[in-house]
Amino acid sequence: MKETVIRFKKSVKLNKPILVVGLPGIGNVGKLVAETLRKQYKPKKIATLYSPHFPHQVVMLKTGGIRLVGNRFYLLRPKGAKNDIILLTGETQAVTPEGQYEVNKKIVDFFADKLKGQFIYTLGGYSVTKELTTSPKVYANVTDKKLISKYKEHGIIFGKSRGMIWGSAGMILAFAKMRKMKGICLMGETGLLDIDASAAKAVLIALSKSTSLEINTAALDKIIEKTAKLLKEQEAIMQGQHNLEQKPAYIR
Amino acid sequence: MKETVIRFKKSVKLNKPILVVGLPGIGNVGKLVAETLRKQYKPKKIATLYSPHFPHQVVMLKTGGIRLVGNRFYLLRPKGAKNDIILLTGETQAVTPEGQYEVNKKIVDFFADKLKGQFIYTLGGYSVTKELTTSPKVYANVTDKKLISKYKEHGIIFGKSRGMIWGSAGMILAFAKMRKMKGICLMGETGLLDIDASAAKAVLIALSKSTSLEINTAALDKIIEKTAKLLKEQEAIMQGQHNLEQKPAYIR
Amino acid sequence: MKETVIRFKKSVKLNKPILVVGLPGIGNVGKLVAETLRKQYKPKKIATLYSPHFPHQVVMLKTGGIRLVGNRFYLLRPKGAKNDIILLTGETQAVTPEGQYEVNKKIVDFFADKLKGQFIYTLGGYSVTKELTTSPKVYANVTDKKLISKYKEHGIIFGKSRGMIWGSAGMILAFAKMRKMKGICLMGETGLLDIDASAAKAVLIALSKSTSLEINTAALDKIIEKTAKLLKEQEAIMQGQHNLEQKPAYIR
Amino acid sequence: MKETVIRFKKSVKLNKPILVVGLPGIGNVGKLVAETLRKQYKPKKIATLYSPHFPHQVVMLKTGGIRLVGNRFYLLRPKGAKNDIILLTGETQAVTPEGQYEVNKKIVDFFADKLKGQFIYTLGGYSVTKELTTSPKVYANVTDKKLISKYKEHGIIFGKSRGMIWGSAGMILAFAKMRKMKGICLMGETGLLDIDASAAKAVLIALSKSTSLEINTAALDKIIEKTAKLLKEQEAIMQGQHNLEQKPAYIR
Repeated sequence: MKETVIRFKKSVKLNKPILVVGLPGIGNVGKLVAETLRKQYKPKKIATLYSPHFPHQVVMLKTGGIRLVGNRFYLLRPKGAKNDIILLTGETQAVTPEGQYEVNKKIVDFFADKLKGQFIYTLGGYSVTKELTTSPKVYANVTDKKLISKYKEHGIIFGKSRGMIWGSAGMILAFAKMRKMKGICLMGETGLLDIDASAAKAVLIALSKSTSLEINTAALDKIIEKTAKLLKEQEAIMQGQHNLEQKPAYIR
Repeated sequence: MKETVIRFKKSVKLNKPILVVGLPGIGNVGKLVAETLRKQYKPKKIATLYSPHFPHQVVMLKTGGIRLVGNRFYLLRPKGAKNDIILLTGETQAVTPEGQYEVNKKIVDFFADKLKGQFIYTLGGYSVTKELTTSPKVYANVTDKKLISKYKEHGIIFGKSRGMIWGSAGMILAFAKMRKMKGICLMGETGLLDIDASAAKAVLIALSKSTSLEINTAALDKIIEKTAKLLKEQEAIMQGQHNLEQKPAYIR
Repeated sequence: MKETVIRFKKSVKLNKPILVVGLPGIGNVGKLVAETLRKQYKPKKIATLYSPHFPHQVVMLKTGGIRLVGNRFYLLRPKGAKNDIILLTGETQAVTPEGQYEVNKKIVDFFADKLKGQFIYTLGGYSVTKELTTSPKVYANVTDKKLISKYKEHGIIFGKSRGMIWGSAGMILAFAKMRKMKGICLMGETGLLDIDASAAKAVLIALSKSTSLEINTAALDKIIEKTAKLLKEQEAIMQGQHNLEQKPAYIR
Repeated sequence: MKETVIRFKKSVKLNKPILVVGLPGIGNVGKLVAETLRKQYKPKKIATLYSPHFPHQVVMLKTGGIRLVGNRFYLLRPKGAKNDIILLTGETQAVTPEGQYEVNKKIVDFFADKLKGQFIYTLGGYSVTKELTTSPKVYANVTDKKLISKYKEHGIIFGKSRGMIWGSAGMILAFAKMRKMKGICLMGETGLLDIDASAAKAVLIALSKSTSLEINTAALDKIIEKTAKLLKEQEAIMQGQHNLEQKPAYIR
């Protein structure tokens, strides 16, 4: 396998589709949102992307089967929605710059040329601090400044995020912009955690405000609760260790 | 050399061949099984695979000669067997993701198109613990769920292995599955050791139960014995060091 | 995106253009000079270079927009100048050797074939010491020894720099030389600092002496001042810490 | 620049040429031998090899000029020799496996097809110990076992070297062997040193015994002497430090 391939399984008729990209990344924000939507809507897979720029891994499935790592396109049809939603998620992103340029260009071209897509949301985390963020803000960048006013109304913050967006969340928008397609990158404020369900929840709510997606945050709320409990326990242990370090000098 | 090449030396007539893949990997399980079979059956090499994605090394042979690192296909003909066995082994696997996708795809296509192959076994280790495993279990994943019941009878465990299979053991099955070819990955439970002959023995026995291969574990038993002895000695030293650390305070 | 591309936006008529290359590198010398010239001349962008060998990043713009990382060619027309100046700068250089060979060859070919260019200046830092350099010298290497005498008159030092020039500052000259195009690499002596405005100022002055560029060093002078202040503060802190380390033995 | 290129400058008539390869590597043995021969014979450069798989560097020359890193082929004509000697040396080897496979294949094909070459010597170090080696042995591996007896007469050791030969010293022989061309890799026993002139001298002597090359080891002897002096000084310092570590307990 020399090149990234997209296997388009079902040639369903799509209704002005919007792409929502939730892949692994900072705080796993995008992936958490994607998995939440996948569990809620139980959507059909319509295409699979494989790439020699992904890690050389297969997933061991619970059933005893295997699956080559990849990215998958799912079709969501929220009730009464004007646009179909295409959800893109998977186990991984490309592991080299060259791979990222190839894979993300293919994703944009597939969405534009084969799915006749209209608009792209990419989801991710924005790492502001090394502290725990309890009520994370949502930052965003867009392909076209005219989009800003609409999203500002939903409490999304523009022009305050600095630096670089790494990986698919940024690259997909860059390639979309080159084709005159519009899109937005929603980034949940994150810091300490590798799996940041709070940031994911904030992004999911922001996404629901501007799309037809109905949001059910129950699964994310459970993770948030569990994480809070774990952190408390850990803090207690750290506190204990701190005490030990202040132990009297006669203890070795 | 720009691409992976397979030099097919002998155009022997093959009888519904089955591929057994034993390459270096976790615990060197696959490689140990392959070497055991190679010593026992003294099979003929029928093809050699070279790749620019292998390390840039040549092996210094005992004879004073050299050999470019590669993978080799050997033909085993167990007595009275319905299927020829093609054993694939070698010094290395591809060192990059791109290389792994290229090399493993070539292996599957060569086996299917040139050797008219029927079924693939890939062998490897499954790292469960950092402890020593004395009576290792054999876990497996398959390309097709229908295969499970047959192998379960031989004590092989399905659906309990989690995470990812890295490298050829997984990728070869993934590319086989894409071509509708069937196969199984047998993984010996391993932990502490870089050269785990116990895990290899468990995999070899599992392999023999479902193929016509007659198994002689004498060579592996020797390694197991030697390893046990070495570990005991090391333990004794560690125990000694531990005692030294508890030396009285007046010793510097 | 499989290859480096240069999007040539304006097909303006150019007057015997000279290329000035100021990209990120040692002490950020080249980039600092380029940004100084860009602020001073407010030049038009005439071409953009994108490459799959650049990092897979997009820049978050203050406006809320995005920009794929790249290199940009700007047109400067100093008053009364015989030659147009093409300024090349950007966020990054290629991240692999293969990428550097591809990108820098493309830059030279584009400048020679499309812009009918005449001469190339590449700007960079030359790391001599780990100390702070307050009055940095300017070292240089050229594609053609006949160039040396002219530049020596401007106080530029030849034949004293040793070792290797990494990246675009060197590679662009190498590819120019292969095409019989002439050029010079001006390197400001640098040491301690990641952002060395003193070295950049020295290079800027050297550049102005042999081109029609009028130099305004006000912006660089501000950075130099700020840096000096910061370093003094840091020194004071270090001094304090040093004192602490000499604290009496009864303090734990 | 997308591919390795060899610029063949002079189409001189060659007399059954033998290739001697001395590139940077373990103990810099090959490179030291090559530089010794280059100084002694002052040979003409007949070809230059550039590669995108080399580091992205240019050499700053003493003259104030530049040179892209590369490998160079020199023509040596020892008096009364039956064979011309082509000496291959340079600043670097390819930095990736893929690059090594490409560059070394090109070298062999160029030598065979363009120079109508007959035999290849590759020179290198063989790392046996972490100690200093004062009277280093010369180990060798060959493309064809029939060569062994001839070289054994010269005190070269066969069949005792184990493991892998990395890089050009091994790969060039491997690609030669694939083309039925013969060759030998001479490896000087080395250990502690990055620049091992003793090992280089041993290899140079071994090389002279089986070729028409007259050997002048004066330059290498100087380095050996200097190194010995440096090591003695260092040892004295280490001895001093050791004494300090045995300082009485009341010194902190």
